Amino acid sequence: MKLFRYGNVKQEKIGVIIDEKYLDASGFGEDYTEDFFATDGINRLEKYIKENKSSLQEIPAGSRLGAIIKRPSKIICIGLNYADHAKEAGSPIPKEPIVFFKATSALCGPNDDLIIPKNSEKTDWEVELAVVIGKEASYVNEKDAMEYVAGYVLHNDYSERAYQLERGGQWVKGKSCDSFAPLGPFLATKDEIADVHNLNLWLKVNGKMMQNSSTKQLIFNIPFLIHYLSQFMTLLPGDIISTGTPHGVGLGFNPPIYLKAGDEVELGIEGLGSSKQKAVAYKSK
Amino acid sequence: MKLFRYGNVKQEKIGVIIDEKYLDASGFGEDYTEDFFATDGINRLEKYIKENKSSLQEIPAGSRLGAIIKRPSKIICIGLNYADHAKEAGSPIPKEPIVFFKATSALCGPNDDLIIPKNSEKTDWEVELAVVIGKEASYVNEKDAMEYVAGYVLHNDYSERAYQLERGGQWVKGKSCDSFAPLGPFLATKDEIADVHNLNLWLKVNGKMMQNSSTKQLIFNIPFLIHYLSQFMTLLPGDIISTGTPHGVGLGFNPPIYLKAGDEVELGIEGLGSSKQKAVAYKSK
Repeated sequence: MKLFRYGNVKQEKIGVIIDEKYLDASGFGEDYTEDFFATDGINRLEKYIKENKSSLQEIPAGSRLGAIIKRPSKIICIGLNYADHAKEAGSPIPKEPIVFFKATSALCGPNDDLIIPKNSEKTDWEVELAVVIGKEASYVNEKDAMEYVAGYVLHNDYSERAYQLERGGQWVKGKSCDSFAPLGPFLATKDEIADVHNLNLWLKVNGKMMQNSSTKQLIFNIPFLIHYLSQFMTLLPGDIISTGTPHGVGLGFNPPIYLKAGDEVELGIEGLGSSKQKAVAYKSK
Repeated sequence: MKLFRYGNVKQEKIGVIIDEKYLDASGFGEDYTEDFFATDGINRLEKYIKENKSSLQEIPAGSRLGAIIKRPSKIICIGLNYADHAKEAGSPIPKEPIVFFKATSALCGPNDDLIIPKNSEKTDWEVELAVVIGKEASYVNEKDAMEYVAGYVLHNDYSERAYQLERGGQWVKGKSCDSFAPLGPFLATKDEIADVHNLNLWLKVNGKMMQNSSTKQLIFNIPFLIHYLSQFMTLLPGDIISTGTPHGVGLGFNPPIYLKAGDEVELGIEGLGSSKQKAVAYKSK
Protein backbone atom coordinates (compact mmCIF):
# COMPACT_ATOMS: atom_id res chain seq x y z
CA MET A 1 0.00 0.00 0.00
CA LYS A 2 0.92 3.63 -0.42
CA LEU A 3 -0.28 5.86 2.38
CA PHE A 4 -0.49 9.64 2.35
CA ARG A 5 -2.03 12.49 4.30
CA TYR A 6 -3.68 15.56 2.79
CA GLY A 7 -5.50 18.74 3.68
CA ASN A 8 -4.70 21.90 5.57
CA VAL A 9 -1.90 22.03 8.14
CA LYS A 10 -2.97 20.34 11.41
CA GLN A 11 -6.23 19.20 9.76
CA GLU A 12 -4.81 16.46 7.57
CA LYS A 13 -6.90 13.46 6.58
CA ILE A 14 -5.54 10.12 5.54
CA GLY A 15 -5.55 8.52 2.11
CA VAL A 16 -4.25 5.62 0.05
CA ILE A 17 -2.98 5.53 -3.52
CA ILE A 18 -4.61 2.87 -5.68
CA ASP A 19 -3.88 2.64 -9.41
CA GLU A 20 -2.11 6.00 -9.14
CA LYS A 21 -5.28 7.63 -7.84
CA TYR A 22 -5.11 9.52 -4.53
CA LEU A 23 -8.15 8.29 -2.60
CA ASP A 24 -9.51 9.59 0.69
CA ALA A 25 -9.54 6.97 3.45
CA SER A 26 -10.67 9.15 6.33
CA GLY A 27 -13.67 6.85 6.82
CA PHE A 28 -11.18 4.48 8.46
CA GLY A 29 -11.43 6.84 11.42
CA GLU A 30 -7.78 7.02 12.45
CA ASP A 31 -4.71 9.08 11.63
CA TYR A 32 -1.28 7.68 10.77
CA THR A 33 0.27 7.90 14.23
CA GLU A 34 2.34 5.81 16.61
CA ASP A 35 -0.89 4.13 17.75
CA PHE A 36 -1.86 3.28 14.18
CA PHE A 37 1.39 1.43 13.56
CA ALA A 38 1.46 -0.10 17.04
CA THR A 39 -1.97 -1.67 16.62
CA ASP A 40 -1.38 -3.41 13.30
CA GLY A 41 -2.87 -0.42 11.48
CA ILE A 42 -1.44 -1.33 8.10
CA ASN A 43 -3.21 -4.69 8.03
CA ARG A 44 -6.39 -3.26 9.49
CA LEU A 45 -6.37 -0.48 6.90
CA GLU A 46 -5.75 -2.96 4.10
CA LYS A 47 -8.83 -4.89 5.16
CA TYR A 48 -10.86 -1.68 5.33
CA ILE A 49 -9.70 -0.70 1.85
CA LYS A 50 -10.65 -4.08 0.39
CA GLU A 51 -14.11 -3.84 1.88
CA ASN A 52 -14.68 -0.23 0.87
CA LYS A 53 -12.65 0.16 -2.31
CA SER A 54 -15.60 0.99 -4.55
CA SER A 55 -16.78 3.86 -2.35
CA LEU A 56 -13.44 5.63 -1.80
CA GLN A 57 -13.42 9.09 -3.38
CA GLU A 58 -10.51 10.85 -5.06
CA ILE A 59 -9.22 13.76 -3.05
CA PRO A 60 -9.98 17.26 -4.40
CA ALA A 61 -7.66 18.34 -7.20
CA GLY A 62 -4.88 20.59 -5.93
CA SER A 63 -5.07 19.28 -2.36
CA ARG A 64 -2.02 19.96 -0.26
CA LEU A 65 -0.17 16.83 0.84
CA GLY A 66 0.92 16.61 4.49
CA ALA A 67 3.79 14.79 6.16
CA ILE A 68 3.01 11.06 5.88
CA ILE A 69 2.83 10.60 9.64
CA LYS A 70 1.43 12.69 12.43
CA ARG A 71 4.08 13.51 15.04
CA PRO A 72 6.39 10.50 15.41
CA SER A 73 8.25 10.29 18.73
CA LYS A 74 11.54 10.96 16.96
CA ILE A 75 13.30 11.60 13.67
CA ILE A 76 16.69 9.91 13.82
CA CYS A 77 19.16 10.88 11.12
CA ILE A 78 22.34 9.14 10.06
CA GLY A 79 25.28 11.36 9.13
CA LEU A 80 27.86 10.69 6.42
CA ASN A 81 26.37 7.34 5.35
CA TYR A 82 27.51 7.59 1.73
CA ALA A 83 31.27 7.46 1.19
CA ASP A 84 31.37 10.16 -1.52
CA HIS A 85 29.35 12.52 0.72
CA ALA A 86 31.72 12.01 3.64
CA LYS A 87 34.53 12.97 1.27
CA GLU A 88 32.83 16.18 0.03
CA ALA A 89 32.09 17.15 3.65
CA GLY A 90 35.79 16.77 4.42
CA SER A 91 35.10 13.98 6.94
CA PRO A 92 36.57 10.49 7.28
CA ILE A 93 34.32 7.52 6.54
CA PRO A 94 32.68 6.76 9.90
CA LYS A 95 33.61 3.54 11.67
CA GLU A 96 30.12 3.29 13.11
CA PRO A 97 26.96 5.26 12.29
CA ILE A 98 26.86 8.96 13.20
CA VAL A 99 23.50 9.64 14.76
CA PHE A 100 21.63 12.87 15.36
CA PHE A 101 18.03 13.94 15.92
CA LYS A 102 15.89 16.37 14.02
CA ALA A 103 13.04 18.07 15.91
CA THR A 104 9.66 16.66 14.89
CA SER A 105 8.45 20.28 14.78
CA ALA A 106 10.44 20.51 11.52
CA LEU A 107 8.04 18.11 9.77
CA CYS A 108 5.99 19.43 6.86
CA GLY A 109 4.29 18.30 3.68
CA PRO A 110 6.42 17.15 0.74
CA ASN A 111 5.57 20.17 -1.40
CA ASP A 112 5.30 22.84 1.29
CA ASP A 113 7.55 25.86 1.02
CA LEU A 114 11.01 25.63 2.49
CA ILE A 115 11.26 28.53 4.93
CA ILE A 116 14.78 29.91 4.98
CA PRO A 117 15.40 30.82 8.63
CA LYS A 118 15.79 34.47 9.64
CA ASN A 119 19.34 35.64 8.96
CA SER A 120 20.27 32.27 7.47
CA GLU A 121 22.77 32.24 4.63
CA LYS A 122 23.67 28.55 4.44
CA THR A 123 20.51 26.51 3.93
CA ASP A 124 21.38 23.28 2.14
CA TRP A 125 19.54 20.23 0.72
CA GLU A 126 19.92 16.48 1.38
CA VAL A 127 17.83 13.86 -0.44
CA GLU A 128 17.42 10.82 1.82
CA LEU A 129 15.65 7.52 2.04
CA ALA A 130 13.72 7.39 5.32
CA VAL A 131 12.54 4.24 7.06
CA VAL A 132 9.32 4.16 9.09
CA ILE A 133 9.42 1.84 12.09
CA GLY A 134 6.46 -0.54 12.41
CA LYS A 135 6.84 -1.91 15.91
CA GLU A 136 8.73 -1.24 19.13
CA ALA A 137 12.39 -2.18 18.70
CA SER A 138 14.92 -2.61 21.50
CA TYR A 139 18.15 -4.64 21.20
CA VAL A 140 17.13 -6.07 17.85
CA ASN A 141 19.37 -8.54 15.97
CA GLU A 142 20.46 -7.53 12.51
CA LYS A 143 18.90 -10.65 10.99
CA ASP A 144 15.48 -9.84 12.50
CA ALA A 145 15.66 -6.10 11.92
CA MET A 146 13.57 -5.90 8.75
CA GLU A 147 10.56 -7.23 10.69
CA TYR A 148 10.49 -3.86 12.44
CA VAL A 149 10.08 -1.85 9.23
CA ALA A 150 6.64 -0.52 8.27
CA GLY A 151 7.79 1.16 5.07
CA TYR A 152 9.81 3.83 3.33
CA VAL A 153 9.42 7.47 2.41
CA LEU A 154 11.28 10.25 0.62
CA HIS A 155 12.82 12.88 2.92
CA ASN A 156 14.72 16.11 2.34
CA ASP A 157 16.95 16.57 5.39
CA TYR A 158 17.36 20.34 5.06
CA SER A 159 20.35 21.65 6.97
CA GLU A 160 21.57 25.11 7.88
CA ARG A 161 25.32 24.64 7.67
CA ALA A 162 26.33 27.67 9.73
CA TYR A 163 23.93 26.64 12.52
CA GLN A 164 25.09 23.03 12.24
CA LEU A 165 28.84 23.54 12.07
CA GLU A 166 29.79 27.05 13.18
CA ARG A 167 27.65 27.64 16.28
CA GLY A 168 29.34 25.36 18.79
CA GLY A 169 28.68 21.79 19.76
CA GLN A 170 26.11 19.48 18.28
CA TRP A 171 24.43 19.43 14.82
CA VAL A 172 20.86 19.66 16.06
CA LYS A 173 20.77 23.46 15.74
CA GLY A 174 21.13 23.25 11.99
CA LYS A 175 18.66 20.42 11.44
CA SER A 176 15.53 21.40 13.31
CA CYS A 177 14.19 24.62 11.79
CA ASP A 178 10.51 24.66 10.82
CA SER A 179 9.91 23.14 7.35
CA PHE A 180 13.31 21.38 7.34
CA ALA A 181 11.74 17.90 7.16
CA PRO A 182 9.38 17.54 4.17
CA LEU A 183 8.30 13.91 4.37
CA GLY A 184 6.45 12.35 1.46
CA PRO A 185 4.65 12.24 -0.98
CA PHE A 186 3.68 8.82 0.40
CA LEU A 187 4.77 5.99 2.66
CA ALA A 188 5.29 2.83 0.63
CA THR A 189 4.77 -0.23 2.79
CA LYS A 190 7.72 -2.62 2.86
CA ASP A 191 6.17 -5.06 0.36
CA GLU A 192 6.02 -2.32 -2.30
CA ILE A 193 9.81 -2.09 -2.59
CA ALA A 194 11.57 -5.14 -3.98
CA ASP A 195 15.11 -4.13 -3.00
CA VAL A 196 15.42 -1.07 -0.80
CA HIS A 197 19.22 -1.21 -1.18
CA ASN A 198 19.07 -0.67 -4.92
CA LEU A 199 17.07 2.50 -5.48
CA ASN A 200 18.12 5.53 -7.48
CA LEU A 201 17.79 8.81 -5.54
CA TRP A 202 18.26 12.28 -6.98
CA LEU A 203 17.81 15.97 -6.27
CA LYS A 204 17.67 19.00 -8.58
CA VAL A 205 17.96 22.69 -7.75
CA ASN A 206 16.27 24.96 -10.28
CA GLY A 207 16.20 22.04 -12.71
CA LYS A 208 19.89 21.23 -12.42
CA MET A 209 20.81 17.75 -11.16
CA MET A 210 22.86 18.10 -7.96
CA GLN A 211 22.54 14.67 -6.35
CA ASN A 212 22.16 11.43 -8.28
CA SER A 213 23.12 8.21 -6.59
CA SER A 214 21.79 4.87 -5.41
CA THR A 215 20.98 3.37 -2.05
CA LYS A 216 23.47 0.66 -3.16
CA GLN A 217 26.09 3.13 -1.94
CA LEU A 218 24.90 3.18 1.69
CA ILE A 219 27.80 2.48 4.05
CA PHE A 220 25.52 1.10 6.79
CA ASN A 221 22.44 -0.66 5.46
CA ILE A 222 18.94 -0.60 6.94
CA PRO A 223 19.01 -3.81 9.01
CA PHE A 224 22.32 -2.78 10.50
CA LEU A 225 21.03 0.71 11.31
CA ILE A 226 17.94 -0.65 13.09
CA HIS A 227 20.06 -3.13 15.03
CA TYR A 228 22.59 -0.43 15.87
CA LEU A 229 20.15 2.28 16.94
CA SER A 230 18.15 -0.17 19.04
CA GLN A 231 21.20 -0.66 21.27
CA PHE A 232 21.02 2.98 22.35
CA MET A 233 17.29 3.71 22.50
CA THR A 234 13.91 2.11 21.98
CA LEU A 235 12.51 2.74 18.52
CA LEU A 236 8.76 3.28 18.64
CA PRO A 237 6.17 2.57 15.95
CA GLY A 238 6.08 5.49 13.53
CA ASP A 239 9.62 6.62 14.31
CA ILE A 240 11.59 7.85 11.31
CA ILE A 241 15.16 6.85 10.49
CA SER A 242 16.60 9.03 7.73
CA THR A 243 19.49 7.03 6.30
CA GLY A 244 21.84 9.75 5.08
CA THR A 245 22.49 11.67 1.89
CA PRO A 246 24.78 10.99 -1.08
CA HIS A 247 27.31 13.30 -2.75
CA GLY A 248 26.15 16.62 -4.19
CA VAL A 249 25.02 18.86 -1.33
CA GLY A 250 25.65 22.60 -1.52
CA LEU A 251 28.35 22.45 1.15
CA GLY A 252 30.44 20.22 -1.12
CA PHE A 253 30.88 22.78 -3.90
CA ASN A 254 33.81 25.16 -4.09
CA PRO A 255 32.63 27.76 -3.32
CA PRO A 256 29.58 26.24 -1.57
CA ILE A 257 26.13 26.81 -3.06
CA TYR A 258 23.25 27.62 -0.71
CA LEU A 259 19.55 28.16 -1.25
CA LYS A 260 17.98 31.59 -1.60
CA ALA A 261 14.36 32.69 -1.77
CA GLY A 262 12.83 31.70 -5.10
CA ASP A 263 14.93 28.59 -5.63
CA GLU A 264 13.12 25.37 -6.45
CA VAL A 265 14.28 22.04 -5.08
CA GLU A 266 12.92 18.82 -6.58
CA LEU A 267 13.86 15.35 -5.41
CA GLY A 268 12.86 11.74 -5.78
CA ILE A 269 13.59 8.11 -5.04
CA GLU A 270 12.74 5.21 -7.32
CA GLY A 271 9.42 3.74 -6.16
CA LEU A 272 8.86 6.48 -3.58
CA GLY A 273 7.74 9.34 -5.82
CA SER A 274 9.04 12.90 -5.88
CA SER A 275 8.54 16.13 -4.01
CA LYS A 276 9.19 19.78 -4.72
CA GLN A 277 9.86 22.68 -2.34
CA LYS A 278 10.09 26.36 -3.17
CA ALA A 279 12.44 28.34 -0.95
CA VAL A 280 10.88 31.42 0.66
CA ALA A 281 12.21 33.99 3.08
CA TYR A 282 11.06 33.79 6.71
CA LYS A 283 8.11 36.03 7.49
CA SER A 284 7.01 36.59 11.06
CA LYS A 285 3.58 35.15 11.81
CA MET B 1 0.11 24.72 41.48
CA LYS B 2 2.11 21.56 41.61
CA LEU B 3 1.13 18.99 39.00
CA PHE B 4 2.04 15.33 38.97
CA ARG B 5 1.08 12.10 37.24
CA TYR B 6 0.70 8.74 38.95
CA GLY B 7 -0.26 5.14 38.29
CA ASN B 8 1.08 2.29 36.19
CA VAL B 9 3.27 2.93 33.17
CA LYS B 10 1.20 4.15 30.19
CA GLN B 11 -1.89 4.34 32.41
CA GLU B 12 -0.95 7.42 34.40
CA LYS B 13 -3.63 9.68 35.84
CA ILE B 14 -3.15 13.32 36.73
CA GLY B 15 -3.00 14.92 40.12
CA VAL B 16 -2.26 18.13 42.00
CA ILE B 17 -0.46 18.68 45.28
CA ILE B 18 -2.36 20.82 47.79
CA ASP B 19 -1.07 21.34 51.34
CA GLU B 20 1.53 18.64 50.65
CA LYS B 21 -1.22 16.12 49.88
CA TYR B 22 -1.10 14.29 46.57
CA LEU B 23 -4.67 14.53 45.22
CA ASP B 24 -6.16 12.78 42.22
CA ALA B 25 -7.42 15.21 39.57
CA SER B 26 -8.38 12.73 36.89
CA GLY B 27 -11.95 14.05 37.00
CA PHE B 28 -10.60 17.00 35.01
CA GLY B 29 -10.68 14.60 32.09
CA GLU B 30 -7.38 15.46 30.41
CA ASP B 31 -3.76 14.39 30.61
CA TYR B 32 -0.77 16.75 30.87
CA THR B 33 0.12 16.90 27.18
CA GLU B 34 1.04 19.45 24.54
CA ASP B 35 -2.68 20.09 24.03
CA PHE B 36 -3.21 20.70 27.74
CA PHE B 37 -0.59 23.45 27.83
CA ALA B 38 -1.59 24.82 24.41
CA THR B 39 -5.19 25.35 25.51
CA ASP B 40 -4.56 27.26 28.72
CA GLY B 41 -4.78 24.02 30.67
CA ILE B 42 -3.07 25.39 33.78
CA ASN B 43 -5.69 28.10 34.26
CA ARG B 44 -8.53 25.78 33.36
CA LEU B 45 -7.24 23.19 35.83
CA GLU B 46 -6.87 25.82 38.52
CA LYS B 47 -10.51 26.75 38.09
CA TYR B 48 -11.53 23.08 38.22
CA ILE B 49 -9.53 22.56 41.39
CA LYS B 50 -11.12 25.57 43.07
CA GLU B 51 -14.58 24.30 42.24
CA ASN B 52 -13.89 20.69 43.24
CA LYS B 53 -11.33 21.00 46.00
CA SER B 54 -13.44 19.40 48.68
CA SER B 55 -14.12 16.26 46.65
CA LEU B 56 -10.57 15.51 45.48
CA GLN B 57 -9.26 12.25 46.93
CA GLU B 58 -5.73 11.45 48.03
CA ILE B 59 -4.01 8.98 45.72
CA PRO B 60 -3.47 5.46 47.09
CA ALA B 61 -0.47 5.17 49.41
CA GLY B 62 2.57 3.80 47.60
CA SER B 63 1.37 4.91 44.16
CA ARG B 64 4.08 5.09 41.50
CA LEU B 65 4.72 8.60 40.18
CA GLY B 66 5.00 9.02 36.40
CA ALA B 67 6.87 11.56 34.30
CA ILE B 68 5.13 14.89 34.80
CA ILE B 69 4.14 15.18 31.16
CA LYS B 70 2.93 12.71 28.59
CA ARG B 71 5.19 12.62 25.55
CA PRO B 72 6.41 16.15 24.85
CA SER B 73 7.51 16.81 21.25
CA LYS B 74 11.10 17.18 22.40
CA ILE B 75 13.53 17.18 25.29
CA ILE B 76 16.20 19.77 24.59
CA CYS B 77 19.29 19.66 26.76
CA ILE B 78 21.97 22.28 27.30
CA GLY B 79 25.54 21.04 27.61
CA LEU B 80 28.24 22.50 29.83
CA ASN B 81 26.07 25.28 31.24
CA TYR B 82 27.87 25.47 34.61
CA ALA B 83 31.46 26.70 34.48
CA ASP B 84 32.81 24.22 37.04
CA HIS B 85 31.21 21.31 35.14
CA ALA B 86 32.77 22.42 31.85
CA LYS B 87 36.09 22.38 33.66
CA GLU B 88 35.67 18.86 35.08
CA ALA B 89 34.61 17.61 31.64
CA GLY B 90 37.83 19.05 30.23
CA SER B 91 35.93 21.44 27.94
CA PRO B 92 36.23 25.20 27.46
CA ILE B 93 33.38 27.42 28.66
CA PRO B 94 31.02 27.56 25.67
CA LYS B 95 30.62 30.89 23.84
CA GLU B 96 27.02 30.05 23.06
CA PRO B 97 24.78 27.26 24.36
CA ILE B 98 25.61 23.68 23.41
CA VAL B 99 22.35 22.00 22.45
CA PHE B 100 21.43 18.36 22.12
CA PHE B 101 18.28 16.26 22.16
CA LYS B 102 17.31 13.37 24.35
CA ALA B 103 14.78 10.86 22.97
CA THR B 104 11.37 11.24 24.61
CA SER B 105 11.30 7.43 24.85
CA ALA B 106 13.83 7.87 27.68
CA LEU B 107 11.19 9.52 29.91
CA CYS B 108 10.16 7.75 33.09
CA GLY B 109 8.81 8.40 36.54
CA PRO B 110 11.00 10.19 39.10
CA ASN B 111 11.47 7.11 41.28
CA ASP B 112 11.51 4.42 38.59
CA ASP B 113 14.56 2.19 38.39
CA LEU B 114 17.48 3.38 36.31
CA ILE B 115 18.12 0.62 33.79
CA ILE B 116 21.83 0.32 33.08
CA PRO B 117 22.01 -0.46 29.35
CA LYS B 118 23.27 -3.85 28.19
CA ASN B 119 27.06 -3.93 28.20
CA SER B 120 27.23 -0.39 29.57
CA GLU B 121 30.07 0.46 31.92
CA LYS B 122 29.87 4.25 32.04
CA THR B 123 26.40 5.28 33.17
CA ASP B 124 26.61 8.68 34.87
CA TRP B 125 24.24 11.08 36.66
CA GLU B 126 23.41 14.77 36.05
CA VAL B 127 20.99 16.70 38.29
CA GLU B 128 19.33 19.42 36.23
CA LEU B 129 16.65 22.06 36.43
CA ALA B 130 14.21 21.53 33.55
CA VAL B 131 11.88 24.16 32.15
CA VAL B 132 8.47 23.24 30.73
CA ILE B 133 7.34 25.42 27.83
CA GLY B 134 3.81 26.82 28.11
CA LYS B 135 3.15 28.14 24.62
CA GLU B 136 4.54 27.97 21.11
CA ALA B 137 7.77 29.95 20.89
CA SER B 138 9.52 31.02 17.70
CA TYR B 139 12.00 33.92 17.46
CA VAL B 140 11.24 35.08 20.98
CA ASN B 141 12.94 38.15 22.49
CA GLU B 142 14.89 37.58 25.66
CA LYS B 143 12.79 40.16 27.52
CA ASP B 144 9.54 38.33 26.65
CA ALA B 145 10.92 34.83 27.08
CA MET B 146 9.58 34.12 30.58
CA GLU B 147 6.03 34.46 29.24
CA TYR B 148 6.62 31.16 27.45
CA VAL B 149 7.39 29.21 30.62
CA ALA B 150 4.73 26.96 32.16
CA GLY B 151 6.86 25.79 35.04
CA TYR B 152 9.85 23.86 36.32
CA VAL B 153 10.72 20.30 37.18
CA LEU B 154 13.59 18.21 38.53
CA HIS B 155 15.40 16.09 35.92
CA ASN B 156 18.23 13.57 36.07
CA ASP B 157 19.91 13.70 32.65
CA TYR B 158 21.46 10.23 32.80
CA SER B 159 24.30 9.81 30.33
CA GLU B 160 26.29 6.81 29.13
CA ARG B 161 29.72 8.38 28.65
CA ALA B 162 31.17 5.70 26.37
CA TYR B 163 28.12 5.92 24.08
CA GLN B 164 28.21 9.73 24.26
CA LEU B 165 31.91 10.34 23.75
CA GLU B 166 33.62 7.23 22.39
CA ARG B 167 31.24 5.93 19.71
CA GLY B 168 31.69 8.56 17.01
CA GLY B 169 29.82 11.74 16.23
CA GLN B 170 27.03 13.25 18.23
CA TRP B 171 26.06 12.94 21.92
CA VAL B 172 22.56 11.61 21.35
CA LYS B 173 23.65 7.94 21.59
CA GLY B 174 24.61 8.36 25.23
CA LYS B 175 21.56 10.37 26.29
CA SER B 176 18.55 8.45 24.99
CA CYS B 177 18.51 5.03 26.64
CA ASP B 178 15.24 3.94 28.25
CA SER B 179 14.86 5.32 31.81
CA PHE B 180 17.53 7.99 31.24
CA ALA B 181 15.07 10.86 31.81
CA PRO B 182 13.30 10.59 35.18
CA LEU B 183 11.19 13.74 35.28
CA GLY B 184 9.50 14.76 38.49
CA PRO B 185 8.23 14.42 41.23
CA PHE B 186 6.08 17.38 40.15
CA LEU B 187 5.86 20.33 37.82
CA ALA B 188 5.81 23.57 39.81
CA THR B 189 4.04 26.28 37.86
CA LYS B 190 6.10 29.42 37.33
CA ASP B 191 4.38 31.37 40.12
CA GLU B 192 5.50 28.78 42.72
CA ILE B 193 9.18 29.66 42.31
CA ALA B 194 10.21 33.13 43.45
CA ASP B 195 13.65 33.18 41.81
CA VAL B 196 14.44 30.30 39.52
CA HIS B 197 18.01 31.55 39.20
CA ASN B 198 18.71 31.08 42.89
CA LEU B 199 17.88 27.48 43.73
CA ASN B 200 20.11 24.94 45.41
CA LEU B 201 20.41 21.65 43.48
CA TRP B 202 22.12 18.51 44.70
CA LEU B 203 22.63 14.84 43.98
CA LYS B 204 23.80 11.97 46.18
CA VAL B 205 25.00 8.48 45.22
CA ASN B 206 24.54 5.88 47.96
CA GLY B 207 24.06 8.72 50.43
CA LYS B 208 27.24 10.58 49.49
CA MET B 209 26.86 14.13 48.19
CA MET B 210 28.30 14.31 44.67
CA GLN B 211 26.72 17.47 43.24
CA ASN B 212 25.77 20.50 45.30
CA SER B 213 25.42 23.83 43.57
CA SER B 214 22.98 26.58 42.73
CA THR B 215 21.19 27.70 39.60
CA LYS B 216 22.92 31.03 40.33
CA GLN B 217 25.89 29.44 38.59
CA LEU B 218 24.14 28.93 35.23
CA ILE B 219 26.24 30.40 32.42
CA PHE B 220 23.20 30.98 30.16
CA ASN B 221 20.04 31.78 32.07
CA ILE B 222 16.51 30.67 31.24
CA PRO B 223 15.26 33.70 29.29
CA PHE B 224 18.41 33.65 27.20
CA LEU B 225 18.07 29.90 26.51
CA ILE B 226 14.45 30.25 25.37
CA HIS B 227 15.36 33.21 23.15
CA TYR B 228 18.37 31.35 21.78
CA LEU B 229 16.68 28.00 21.10
CA SER B 230 13.71 29.68 19.47
CA GLN B 231 16.02 31.01 16.74
CA PHE B 232 16.72 27.43 15.61
CA MET B 233 13.41 25.64 16.10
CA THR B 234 9.86 26.20 17.28
CA LEU B 235 9.36 25.29 20.92
CA LEU B 236 5.97 23.67 21.47
CA PRO B 237 3.80 23.67 24.60
CA GLY B 238 5.01 20.91 26.91
CA ASP B 239 8.52 20.85 25.46
CA ILE B 240 11.27 20.32 28.03
CA ILE B 241 14.47 22.34 28.23
CA SER B 242 16.96 20.77 30.63
CA THR B 243 19.33 23.53 31.56
CA GLY B 244 22.57 21.64 32.26
CA THR B 245 24.32 20.10 35.23
CA PRO B 246 26.80 21.49 37.76
CA HIS B 247 30.14 20.06 38.90
CA GLY B 248 30.28 16.59 40.40
CA VAL B 249 29.36 14.04 37.74
CA GLY B 250 31.09 10.65 37.71
CA LEU B 251 33.09 11.53 34.61
CA GLY B 252 34.80 14.33 36.51
CA PHE B 253 36.48 12.11 39.12
CA ASN B 254 39.96 10.68 38.72
CA PRO B 255 39.47 7.83 38.11
CA PRO B 256 35.85 8.34 36.97
CA ILE B 257 33.03 6.82 39.02
CA TYR B 258 30.15 5.15 37.21
CA LEU B 259 26.92 3.56 38.38
CA LYS B 260 26.49 -0.16 38.91
CA ALA B 261 23.45 -2.27 39.70
CA GLY B 262 22.34 -1.69 43.28
CA ASP B 263 23.49 1.91 43.51
CA GLU B 264 21.00 4.48 44.73
CA VAL B 265 20.85 7.97 43.28
CA GLU B 266 18.93 10.69 45.07
CA LEU B 267 18.59 14.26 43.85
CA GLY B 268 16.66 17.42 44.49
CA ILE B 269 16.16 21.07 43.74
CA GLU B 270 14.94 23.65 46.23
CA GLY B 271 11.17 24.06 45.74
CA LEU B 272 10.98 21.21 43.21
CA GLY B 273 11.16 18.22 45.51
CA SER B 274 13.41 15.21 45.25
CA SER B 275 13.56 11.91 43.41
CA LYS B 276 15.36 8.64 43.90
CA GLN B 277 16.40 6.00 41.38
CA LYS B 278 17.86 2.58 42.02
CA ALA B 279 20.24 1.31 39.37
CA VAL B 280 19.38 -2.13 37.99
CA ALA B 281 20.94 -4.27 35.28
CA TYR B 282 19.16 -4.49 31.94
CA LYS B 283 16.90 -7.54 31.65
CA SER B 284 15.37 -8.50 28.30
CA LYS B 285 11.60 -8.12 28.20
